[in-house]
Amino acid sequence: MCIITDAYRYKVLAILCDGFDAAVAEPRLYSAAENELGLRQFLESQGHEYIVFSAKDGAEDGFGKLIGDTDVLITIPFYSTVLTREFFEKAKNLKICIVAGVGFDHIDLNAALVHSVQVLEVSGASVVSIAEQVVMSILLLVRNFTTAHEMVEGGEWQLSHIARNAFDLENKVVGIIGTGRIGYSILERLVPFDCQLLYWDDNPLKLEEQEQAVNVRRIRDLKEFVSLCDVIVVSIPLHEGTISLVNRELLSHFRKGTWLVNCARGAICNMDDVAAALRSGHLRGYAGDSWNIHPAPKDHPWRSMKNPLHGGNCMTPHYSALTLDAQARYARGVKTILERFFAGEDQDPDDVVVGVGQSLRKVCGQ
Amino acid sequence: MCIITDAYRYKVLAILCDGFDAAVAEPRLYSAAENELGLRQFLESQGHEYIVFSAKDGAEDGFGKLIGDTDVLITIPFYSTVLTREFFEKAKNLKICIVAGVGFDHIDLNAALVHSVQVLEVSGASVVSIAEQVVMSILLLVRNFTTAHEMVEGGEWQLSHIARNAFDLENKVVGIIGTGRIGYSILERLVPFDCQLLYWDDNPLKLEEQEQAVNVRRIRDLKEFVSLCDVIVVSIPLHEGTISLVNRELLSHFRKGTWLVNCARGAICNMDDVAAALRSGHLRGYAGDSWNIHPAPKDHPWRSMKNPLHGGNCMTPHYSALTLDAQARYARGVKTILERFFAGEDQDPDDVVVGVGQSLRKVCGQ
Repeated sequence: MCIITDAYRYKVLAILCDGFDAAVAEPRLYSAAENELGLRQFLESQGHEYIVFSAKDGAEDGFGKLIGDTDVLITIPFYSTVLTREFFEKAKNLKICIVAGVGFDHIDLNAALVHSVQVLEVSGASVVSIAEQVVMSILLLVRNFTTAHEMVEGGEWQLSHIARNAFDLENKVVGIIGTGRIGYSILERLVPFDCQLLYWDDNPLKLEEQEQAVNVRRIRDLKEFVSLCDVIVVSIPLHEGTISLVNRELLSHFRKGTWLVNCARGAICNMDDVAAALRSGHLRGYAGDSWNIHPAPKDHPWRSMKNPLHGGNCMTPHYSALTLDAQARYARGVKTILERFFAGEDQDPDDVVVGVGQSLRKVCGQ
Repeated sequence: MCIITDAYRYKVLAILCDGFDAAVAEPRLYSAAENELGLRQFLESQGHEYIVFSAKDGAEDGFGKLIGDTDVLITIPFYSTVLTREFFEKAKNLKICIVAGVGFDHIDLNAALVHSVQVLEVSGASVVSIAEQVVMSILLLVRNFTTAHEMVEGGEWQLSHIARNAFDLENKVVGIIGTGRIGYSILERLVPFDCQLLYWDDNPLKLEEQEQAVNVRRIRDLKEFVSLCDVIVVSIPLHEGTISLVNRELLSHFRKGTWLVNCARGAICNMDDVAAALRSGHLRGYAGDSWNIHPAPKDHPWRSMKNPLHGGNCMTPHYSALTLDAQARYARGVKTILERFFAGEDQDPDDVVVGVGQSLRKVCGQ
């Protein structure tokens, strides 16, 4: 139950992103500024003030003036204004900062802690989206889809030019770096494809039953692990220890012709080393959704890199967790967090990044 | 064991297809004329004569002169010379006709029967390839991959234009028309994606355990069936009763925005009706590998058709069962059939299309 006393009406500020004509035509694009996370009626019916800005307006042009008396701030990951130490110093009334999604690189968590601002995300809401994207990406790469589809669009029909680099996933060795919630969901979806499944993780799966359920085997040494795989999936958080983990040195231990999928954070794979490995054919393909720079500039090498057979690039522009189903989960999740906050109830511990009077709970991308 | 008496050496003729530079560089393109199904050493070491022609040479230009004394003929589906009644009349010595693959539209089976020529295919060798292609295609369509990937290649970054038509597969209703070996393999691979699975088939699944294993429910009325589905997969043989099964009338019973996947035979879906339904948005997407014409002409509407949001076309040029893994299975399968034939052993009943002194065993595409 959400109980609001007449004594306090909150000022809620959401900094979202323009969706333009697409958002006007499609109300389920909840994360677009135009659609306001679908929260206006809910908030105004309870007497709260709800102001929505687009991230592009910038702190100085628009919401910067309002932040001094904002109680609740809602942002989206990756494309939001960066919430710096200076920002938190100005936000004198700020009590809670909610990420309408998963990820909080844009927030100076130590500053939030110092200023006693809670930080929450809609934890778990992207797990299924990313797991599906990874399985799709594996199939795309192994089956050489993009080369085939481009041949249709180009008016050609020369099957040997597709088939020479197309394989079945069955019987391939698929190795996953990281077996958190997303990694394990990927493994579950791979079971019926009859691959050999391996994993590498500093934190092994806790339950032997978990390993058995998906028939996955742990390899402790990373270099040995990558040398055993036909397909390698990156599914770990980004932090100081994982930036550029997949670099020229580690790639040298990959088998020639390995497919690499990274729907975790782009910067875990070194931009130039991956591009060089694909161009040389050492990597047969690379599929990534997240990039090291967002938005990726027009000349980013990952946009145009190809293997020597003119394929193997299955990049997408970081949309995998923005499906309309995922956006509905974010919108519902933010509403639940707001209801709990207004009612003074405890939050779901999984959603808490910085709690009340607590230290940091999570590392980036966890 | 393969036992050949000195008394009889066979003349084996294979009519394959040019693979050009790709086949020279990639010896695992076994079905290409250049790579001769990898059978030359096997056949010649046993004293047989082995002649390989490319299908494009045509009956009159090349192998036509040889067919009079050929004992064993090997062809590939779809791109081979058509084996007509006149052909069988000329092929006086022909004893066995082997398809290095799955499918025998190009063979006049009644004529083969009349002339006592056995017809065999490598049954089952494409099941996994096609099942994987279908699951990939479902994910591609539902997650709006091609629109996203084209944005990367085009140098753009406007996520709302992708996300507005991207969904998760989870919780969608996926219906499959046909639950033969391929159809059931598709269902098995869909289980961990947490969809609701339905099927329509004149021949229901034989075992209740089979239905329970993949948690699929039968809908007996085809119009009701299609009206319940978010995704519809075609996985039935092509015959007189299924040509143009998916036409304007049946499409009118689809939900608006349904995704349609057809990796069975292209002609089961009416070319113009599907194109019109996609262009109007009644279909949200169409992914097909097989076409009603092979090779598809440059102006075939399925090459360029799009939904109103400029996406939804995930066509490929009938390569799904030509992966290097599938080609290895065809080559192994042909060798096994040859070994049994030379040794006078019974063939695997699944491979037999026309048996010795028997009537037809199969319908096209079964």
